Amino acid sequence: MPGVPPARYAYLGPQGTFTEAALRSLPAASKAELQPHGSVGAALDAVRSGGADGAVVPIENSIEGAVAVTLDELSSGEPLMITREIHVDVQFSLLAKRGVKPGDLRRVATHPHAEAQCRRWLATHLPDAEVVLESSTAHAAEVVAREDSPYDGAVAAPIAATTYRLATLATNIADRAGAVTRFVLVSRPATPQPRTGADKTSLVVFIRDNHPGALLEMLEQFAARGVDLTRIESRPTGSGLGEYCFSMDAVGHVDDERMGEALMGLRRMCADVRFLGSYPRVDGEVTTVVVGTTDEDFTEAYGWLTRLRNP
Amino acid sequence: MPGVPPARYAYLGPQGTFTEAALRSLPAASKAELQPHGSVGAALDAVRSGGADGAVVPIENSIEGAVAVTLDELSSGEPLMITREIHVDVQFSLLAKRGVKPGDLRRVATHPHAEAQCRRWLATHLPDAEVVLESSTAHAAEVVAREDSPYDGAVAAPIAATTYRLATLATNIADRAGAVTRFVLVSRPATPQPRTGADKTSLVVFIRDNHPGALLEMLEQFAARGVDLTRIESRPTGSGLGEYCFSMDAVGHVDDERMGEALMGLRRMCADVRFLGSYPRVDGEVTTVVVGTTDEDFTEAYGWLTRLRNP
Amino acid sequence: MPGVPPARYAYLGPQGTFTEAALRSLPAASKAELQPHGSVGAALDAVRSGGADGAVVPIENSIEGAVAVTLDELSSGEPLMITREIHVDVQFSLLAKRGVKPGDLRRVATHPHAEAQCRRWLATHLPDAEVVLESSTAHAAEVVAREDSPYDGAVAAPIAATTYRLATLATNIADRAGAVTRFVLVSRPATPQPRTGADKTSLVVFIRDNHPGALLEMLEQFAARGVDLTRIESRPTGSGLGEYCFSMDAVGHVDDERMGEALMGLRRMCADVRFLGSYPRVDGEVTTVVVGTTDEDFTEAYGWLTRLRNP
Amino acid sequence: MPGVPPARYAYLGPQGTFTEAALRSLPAASKAELQPHGSVGAALDAVRSGGADGAVVPIENSIEGAVAVTLDELSSGEPLMITREIHVDVQFSLLAKRGVKPGDLRRVATHPHAEAQCRRWLATHLPDAEVVLESSTAHAAEVVAREDSPYDGAVAAPIAATTYRLATLATNIADRAGAVTRFVLVSRPATPQPRTGADKTSLVVFIRDNHPGALLEMLEQFAARGVDLTRIESRPTGSGLGEYCFSMDAVGHVDDERMGEALMGLRRMCADVRFLGSYPRVDGEVTTVVVGTTDEDFTEAYGWLTRLRNP
Repeated sequence: MPGVPPARYAYLGPQGTFTEAALRSLPAASKAELQPHGSVGAALDAVRSGGADGAVVPIENSIEGAVAVTLDELSSGEPLMITREIHVDVQFSLLAKRGVKPGDLRRVATHPHAEAQCRRWLATHLPDAEVVLESSTAHAAEVVAREDSPYDGAVAAPIAATTYRLATLATNIADRAGAVTRFVLVSRPATPQPRTGADKTSLVVFIRDNHPGALLEMLEQFAARGVDLTRIESRPTGSGLGEYCFSMDAVGHVDDERMGEALMGLRRMCADVRFLGSYPRVDGEVTTVVVGTTDEDFTEAYGWLTRLRNP
Repeated sequence: MPGVPPARYAYLGPQGTFTEAALRSLPAASKAELQPHGSVGAALDAVRSGGADGAVVPIENSIEGAVAVTLDELSSGEPLMITREIHVDVQFSLLAKRGVKPGDLRRVATHPHAEAQCRRWLATHLPDAEVVLESSTAHAAEVVAREDSPYDGAVAAPIAATTYRLATLATNIADRAGAVTRFVLVSRPATPQPRTGADKTSLVVFIRDNHPGALLEMLEQFAARGVDLTRIESRPTGSGLGEYCFSMDAVGHVDDERMGEALMGLRRMCADVRFLGSYPRVDGEVTTVVVGTTDEDFTEAYGWLTRLRNP
Repeated sequence: MPGVPPARYAYLGPQGTFTEAALRSLPAASKAELQPHGSVGAALDAVRSGGADGAVVPIENSIEGAVAVTLDELSSGEPLMITREIHVDVQFSLLAKRGVKPGDLRRVATHPHAEAQCRRWLATHLPDAEVVLESSTAHAAEVVAREDSPYDGAVAAPIAATTYRLATLATNIADRAGAVTRFVLVSRPATPQPRTGADKTSLVVFIRDNHPGALLEMLEQFAARGVDLTRIESRPTGSGLGEYCFSMDAVGHVDDERMGEALMGLRRMCADVRFLGSYPRVDGEVTTVVVGTTDEDFTEAYGWLTRLRNP
Repeated sequence: MPGVPPARYAYLGPQGTFTEAALRSLPAASKAELQPHGSVGAALDAVRSGGADGAVVPIENSIEGAVAVTLDELSSGEPLMITREIHVDVQFSLLAKRGVKPGDLRRVATHPHAEAQCRRWLATHLPDAEVVLESSTAHAAEVVAREDSPYDGAVAAPIAATTYRLATLATNIADRAGAVTRFVLVSRPATPQPRTGADKTSLVVFIRDNHPGALLEMLEQFAARGVDLTRIESRPTGSGLGEYCFSMDAVGHVDDERMGEALMGLRRMCADVRFLGSYPRVDGEVTTVVVGTTDEDFTEAYGWLTRLRNP
């Protein structure tokens, strides 16, 4: 469409990582401008400043970057909102310059987490190779591709073969199959995605004081409205290790009455609540609704209360 | 005021009981028509049928009638509403015909609960007297007053001396001082009394099924909104001993946002909720409001949620 | 067996009540000495003083006496222990002197609760009869049996026909079928009945202070060990209406590890716990054991902890 | 002492990181053999295989490595035990070859997290320098020290200046002061450290199934015994993103009766519990003991229960 500029997506770079693969799995990415950034914070700041329309960053079980840093970057600074989650199968490939054979590999570079996940495979298939750690699997691949590379091979995301024009000597070399990394697409605050019935809501909750039972009280705000959690992590708030906030994902959408009431409960009971967005679950798992917690149940109960107050 | 008919109050009779004393403690009773009834159910039915404008019945720690029967009568049948609670000090008097002396007493009549509460006094002061049980302390006094009474004395409420024109031989003869009976004034459903900040709300909650933890879940509906309870009693629902409902008093008023939300939570989660009224606490104890549960807190949180949904 | 004196059972009299019927349903009662007492307290005191070996008193949904008074009498004074519960179907009969016909009845006596439960039947079948209230259904029957009785008929327990040699004009006249009264057999503290797998444990728990959430905390002691409750009632402790204790029945036996740990939890957390006995459930309902709460589970976990502490 | 070999400590390398600084803060480290490893997993495996007596790895708010990987490595494989926690102030220094001046810096290398924490300082003081990311701050420093280094400077831990014989151009350059990284010293399972009264217990709990309320039930095991948590993180169990375990730190020691009972409760209720050790809190904060949860309270309650069972 003439006149409409393409969308611009920031992501945790460099090129050739699982994060880029996550971003490229979005239909909108095919015609968009993709901006690799050197850190999660830089990618998110690009959205905050308007330099990008969205950013894709890893949030759980990450290989490339750190979960913790993403949680912390979303918990502070100008508010941002998650609009989508993306799962990427963690399948590692062994990459090398074209013409190189597995038997030739002496020094193999990769990221520490990838090394941890492929350790047994590497010990079995490349017992004599030295494994060298780099800051990302993609950086490892990029160095391998250099003319004067100190490395012969890289353990990296499959996408890195294309990015750096390397040959794929082996695929699926992780010791344990089925690992998945979760990424999120983040934008500036806006009206949340419409409800699909299979949604998730992300939050950061700052408790008022760290008294015994504070966590239990917080969770009762969800339980009393029949809202379940899929993830919770206590996070130090940054001004020391003694003060905590909680990063969590709840099942459902901010437009669900039960979720709305739970959020209001947290808002009242806690020092602060940061809403990080409601978005469709990538696994499509339809929310199990506890008896008595549909929107209709809330409406009926409200009508009943109104009649009690004014018969 | 000409043209305005006096109010009509039913009460658990007969005349001369603590229940009548409770009713007469109400300013409105002085010009009203007072109707003694033979049972709690009959007094309440008088209100239901329009034969009375209100009824006073005992509800807790009763001497005259039974707590259980009042709870059960309020839990079923046409809905009624508590508009006021009344406390009466349980002070017993020893009554006899004029001219009779304590030493003359051979047969003393009273209600079983009064006997229980004055047992030590009677054993000490009237060791030779036989204690005979009657259906109410007032009935005992009434029989004593008869010409051909089989009894010489009665242990009864102080008011019974006036009612039955008897002499008071001793006062305050309960073994333990400080006992109080709680009565309620009941009317047909109407707009609740205005909030005073020191209110109580009475409910009957029918749980959906008797699964383990059902009671805990019900109480979490209150706890999640910072509402406290002052009384809870499980009651069989009548169709057997295995099915239960819960009769309870919660601290606060139906017009309080926190109470309203807790009630809606119960309405949604439970098989049924019967609202029995919000009314001023007779002890005047001002509600302790947990941080984050004022009406203002609810309004603020609602505004916040609205902005999340539509920025 | 020569030389063994018969057991002596106290009960809430007079003769001819549902309480006597409950007592007579016990096999041991056939050869025992049965002692009617004028009040629940007197019956229990007979056990405390050694004048009786056991006492049968009503505890729930009582027709004859009061639940509240039984709970309160068990909560204070010398400790007693429930060893058995007994259910009696509440079936009322219309009794009169032999030869009297229903049409002759002008004044019918009964207890207030019986009147409440047969009101519709009486209004339909004896529309012209006056209903007079007495302190028990048995007392009503006893007065009817007198030569010069002021009453023509009594609504009473079926057993009263035998006791007072009256004719039964109608049976099962309660308006709602299926009502049951629960009685308990009480003795001095002793080793509890052996476990049957279908047991109940009765307790009185005095909370430390009446802070918001105190009830919830108490119930969590049960929930954390998978123990369910079948009954709970808050009771004023006697020195005013503001202080509460809780009378409750929990599912299981004091010898169950899960119950033992829950009881110890209450003992530590609460101001006081009065154990009122573990005994077979009269309904024979086998305890549903939550996963992880069998005695074997406790033993296994204890072994595990011991190994953690001393590998 | 002749004949006693020095202790061998593995740690997350390379040399010159905050992890080495953490390890060197231990008195025992001064005479020990220190073994840098390329990943958290490799350092822990050195302990498992007997190649090292202990390992120091980062566990919270890490700069050098990843929290997540440490949690996951401790949650699976041969059991290990935390015996000590260590806090290290996160103070970054700007390092360069001797003789280099700040104005000369064109390319500065560091780890992504360090870049995130010093971003503002770098933008202000080195606006023209390019920041290049490496796999660790120490690796960045090591490269800077090379003859033919592509970088002029490194942002690294102060210790790296000594390790790599670099000059310190600036200290304390993090944008926000007060950040702390938490490390743990891990060994093979053994008798836990003695209680100090200011202890922490680390656990991994695998819930039986992911039903709504499972987390709440788990936390009630702690709450019912008055045990508080300082950290909780849900972690995918590795075979997909849908199944969770919880990594947590609880306040107190496995030898505390309340902690022991809570652990046994988890053991019974959950699919699995992995005990990761009880050890002194590095902040020395004495455990706040809730009323009724001292060891004496447990002993007293146990005596009481024993008497109930066998009077």
